[in-house]
Order: sequence, then structure tokens, then C-alpha cells
Amino acid sequence: IICSKGKYGLKLLLSYRPAAPVNVSVTHLRADSATVSWNIPEGETVIGFAVSQQRQDGLMQRFIREVNTTSRACILWDLDEDTDYIIQVQSVGVYGESLASKKIHFRTLKKSEHIQSTMMDQGKHVCWII
Amino acid sequence: IICSKGKYGLKLLLSYRPAAPVNVSVTHLRADSATVSWNIPEGETVIGFAVSQQRQDGLMQRFIREVNTTSRACILWDLDEDTDYIIQVQSVGVYGESLASKKIHFRTLKKSEHIQSTMMDQGKHVCWII
Repeated sequence: IICSKGKYGLKLLLSYRPAAPVNVSVTHLRADSATVSWNIPEGETVIGFAVSQQRQDGLMQRFIREVNTTSRACILWDLDEDTDYIIQVQSVGVYGESLASKKIHFRTLKKSEHIQSTMMDQGKHVCWII
Repeated sequence: IICSKGKYGLKLLLSYRPAAPVNVSVTHLRADSATVSWNIPEGETVIGFAVSQQRQDGLMQRFIREVNTTSRACILWDLDEDTDYIIQVQSVGVYGESLASKKIHFRTLKKSEHIQSTMMDQGKHVCWII
């Protein structure tokens, strides 16, 4: 609980909750890993992020939270090949977390596609908003 | 809130909280990554794990939580070289999380040590309990 002395303390407090990340995208897609990156809307003060990752079939769910970081990207490792995943990103502010970004879908490569793609996917976006 | 019909319902509920992971160790240590692995005490039913990672100097903190997984290991990526980290692991059960394991300390390699070590560190433990 945060106590505010101002007349409009509560309003002030709510305004400290950062806006959700934008431009969430997935790059460097492989059979077993991918990189999620995003942007912070201008003027937002954030101290970290949270990424939720789940298989579209409802199996393994992962939640990653980092604070005291300026990173705007996160590697997702140990993924299953040829599998659909859904991710969402939140910004972490001093007084709370943002709403979640839009849901982003991506599908990992088959292992046989992996070698071929490693020379091609630098910076290419391989996801879509759902 | 979980309602139990048994006379000793509360006692039963508390016993469902799993025991903490044991034999937590760090292997495959590099300049920018490491693998944390652990064991589950016999007889425990766990559905996931949570790993907390923090730099010893108090900077970047990371929390990773996975459910619906049988994995007993987790890769820590994007670490800083030649830096001290402290980790703890919890087991996730159906009705709650275990207490945290003992704190484990490790120090990442310098980049110059990286190449030399990659042929040597397979399975070697490179951490200590603090």
C-alpha cells in the first residue's frame, strides 16, 4: 500500500502504472529458441519486464520477470520444435506492472529447417498478433 | 481457498506443499550462461519450478516460473561475464510452492576463459552453497 500526501494522490498513483509495451515481435526463430523484443511508449519509466509464454495447446507455461534492467528483449529457450506458442509482455514500473501487451503468436521451426534459417532470419519478424 | 471434507483437512492440505528441491547445482558455466539443475525428494508430486536469480551486487534480478513441466533444470541466459550470482529454486505443487532451496552462489567466466572451458565443464559443478 502506497500512501500519498497529495489531494489527488490516488489519481497520481494510478498514473504511475506504466503503459503496456508496444511493437512486440519475435525474431531469431529457431527450433528450440526465439527472441522476444518490444518497445516502451515514450515517456514511460520502467524498471523491468515480465514475459508470459505458453504453448497454444495449454501445456508448459513459463513466466519470466526481470527487474533492475533496461533490456527490451528476452530470449525464450528450451522450446519444442514445430510448436505454437503465445506470448504477452508487461512493463514493470516502480509502483506496479502495466497491462499485458496484445497476444503474439509464433511457431517454432522444425529441426530440419533450423540450419537453413539461421542465415536468413536476422531481424526478420516471424510472429503475428492474435 | 481449498475446502477439504476430512477431519484433518487442514493438516492434509499443508502436507501437499512440496519439499524444497535438493542437490541444486550449476553446470555448463560460461561467460554469458549457466545451467541450474536440482533433484526432487522422493515421493514429492511437483508440477513445476521457480528459479530466482540475482546478481550479488543487487543489480538485475530475474524470476523464472514454469508449470506443467517435468524439467529439473533451467538455463540462465544473458548473464554478465565475471559476475557473481545467487540462485534459489522452489518446487511448484498443485496447492502451492515449496520453501526455497539453500542459496547457491556461482561466478560467470571471463570471456577469455570461455573457449578454454567449453571443452572441460561438461557435468562439472561450479557452485557452492552459501
